Amino acid sequence: MQEKPLLAITMGDAAGVGPEVIVRAWADSQVHQHCRPVVLGHPQIIEEAVRLVGSDARVQIVDLSELANCTVSGDTIPIVPVGSDNIMDVPRGTLDARTGGAAFEAVVLAIEMTRSGQFDGIVTAPLSKAALHAAGHIYPGHTELLAERCGVDDFAMMLYLPPRPHMPQEKAPPCPAGLGVVHVTLHVALRDVFANLTTEAVLAKCCLANSVMRDGIGLSTPRIGVCALNPHAGENGLFGDEESRIIAPAVAKARELGIDAAGPFPTDTLMGRARDGEFDALVAMYHDQGHIALKLLGMHRAVNVTLGLPIVRTSVAHGTAFDRAWQGTAEASGMVAAMLTAATLCQRLI
Amino acid sequence: MQEKPLLAITMGDAAGVGPEVIVRAWADSQVHQHCRPVVLGHPQIIEEAVRLVGSDARVQIVDLSELANCTVSGDTIPIVPVGSDNIMDVPRGTLDARTGGAAFEAVVLAIEMTRSGQFDGIVTAPLSKAALHAAGHIYPGHTELLAERCGVDDFAMMLYLPPRPHMPQEKAPPCPAGLGVVHVTLHVALRDVFANLTTEAVLAKCCLANSVMRDGIGLSTPRIGVCALNPHAGENGLFGDEESRIIAPAVAKARELGIDAAGPFPTDTLMGRARDGEFDALVAMYHDQGHIALKLLGMHRAVNVTLGLPIVRTSVAHGTAFDRAWQGTAEASGMVAAMLTAATLCQRLI
Repeated sequence: MQEKPLLAITMGDAAGVGPEVIVRAWADSQVHQHCRPVVLGHPQIIEEAVRLVGSDARVQIVDLSELANCTVSGDTIPIVPVGSDNIMDVPRGTLDARTGGAAFEAVVLAIEMTRSGQFDGIVTAPLSKAALHAAGHIYPGHTELLAERCGVDDFAMMLYLPPRPHMPQEKAPPCPAGLGVVHVTLHVALRDVFANLTTEAVLAKCCLANSVMRDGIGLSTPRIGVCALNPHAGENGLFGDEESRIIAPAVAKARELGIDAAGPFPTDTLMGRARDGEFDALVAMYHDQGHIALKLLGMHRAVNVTLGLPIVRTSVAHGTAFDRAWQGTAEASGMVAAMLTAATLCQRLI
Repeated sequence: MQEKPLLAITMGDAAGVGPEVIVRAWADSQVHQHCRPVVLGHPQIIEEAVRLVGSDARVQIVDLSELANCTVSGDTIPIVPVGSDNIMDVPRGTLDARTGGAAFEAVVLAIEMTRSGQFDGIVTAPLSKAALHAAGHIYPGHTELLAERCGVDDFAMMLYLPPRPHMPQEKAPPCPAGLGVVHVTLHVALRDVFANLTTEAVLAKCCLANSVMRDGIGLSTPRIGVCALNPHAGENGLFGDEESRIIAPAVAKARELGIDAAGPFPTDTLMGRARDGEFDALVAMYHDQGHIALKLLGMHRAVNVTLGLPIVRTSVAHGTAFDRAWQGTAEASGMVAAMLTAATLCQRLI
């Protein structure tokens, strides 16, 4: 790809923090150096967010025939209108089928336009799963909707902490390519982790983590650290045997495939080793194992990357934050990081 | 207590990092400002550690009749001799029944001398559970040995991150009393957590956390945050029901008892809130939940505090580190923190 990638930015739930974080991210000059973001959402909602944050940017409806050549700067927010005007009536910070439906429409349009080549990738602002369900769209979340529309079964979510930007006075950060965490199980009860933990599933996530860090982020041989399930990695079978029975065989198979995987390691110390630069990506066995660490290491700038899709898709790692929406206090570094990560992935993968 | 507390410092496994971290901690002036540490271990091993780190301190065998009045400084390491000379033959960094047996003897003596009032509290350097077992002492670890010898059934381990010392240019740290994490289940397979998770067990840990942070650390009303078990705290029963069925009733009962407990909260965000000062102690449902967070927040200075004993006992949170022992590179801030925390607890509890 020669040009800056053209990214579809879905507005998310209009009653949440999505519109505000999008408008705040627009003011970040790095964004416009690396990509051309275009909002898919409701122009009046974005205009309200512009007023909320005191931005000077102008919201401009895109001429679709000119989309491929459109230039984007901090002064102008191009938008592809999506969603009925009735979402203007939804009180901010509340769960409503109308805003849930409009958020759904924007994601579906973004998928269609990206699959047809009109956009290079998608960045999604948060939607409310409950509002999505209220609107009759029964998906656990964005990721499953994307997988279904792309006809993909073998997908995963990677929580990714991009490298901190270099400060002139700083030495190189310990993880020059950032740190990704791929989860073997995610939105299931802890009790149901065991039934979903198989050698095949762990191996599949090792392969996905390796692929994205190699082909998407650009490392020649990503170093993959694999978490244990039990405390002290089971202490030689004393506290559980999933390490020897399930996880170690997956690591061995990954290594046979040429992947630089290692583990399973006790997770409480592995996380510190990863922070200090020993690994580029981790494979976590369950949700909190990865999320506790990555949120402590950089909650605001964490990015979700969907792996296994035929298109690039990133997302902020936070939710709609209805309780803090439309108060002018939202933190946009996650949206900036999601846009920059999508730009990096598009440059390499497309 | 008027005087500085007199602390029994058990040497731990002679082949591990215990002797080195004890000698390094001796050089910290804060230690001698706040307590009088006395080693229980083998004098020649400690002398070797003195040479290893290039210390000028002199190892001096204690006259037990003068123990109560002994003064301790950075120049002198008083020691109560424990253990046979045969531990001198054990290669450093290896697991051996002889060093395991000597480590056991030191802990047993420390318990006896503290229970009889000769010491005010115990600080333990790491021992190897496998070496302990090789010597025929079948305990999961220090804590269970202490509980048995003290005749206690209702005990718990708190992982405690002491407050960072104030730097002149710093504002007050967010957790002025540090941050404690008490675990409802600890050294069990993740699969076995569910059978051990009861409302009574969660409530008991809330009470223990409250007691130590109030009576031991000195907070009038400690703020106790209680972890959820499932991702997103179960998302209203979608991913598990232990939150509503087991944990929430325990939090409600704790509040009825006058404890400022709150939760269950999604653990990945609770940990960030605790780091930012919103809680003084957390109740974690399983080992890695608490350990991932606390080790990331301050691995080297984390301290284990045994709750529920009739005596004060703290420990470093790290192990024997056989692979890095006797190389002169061990980090002693955990031992310093364990001594200072024991001193704080003795001042209030004795």
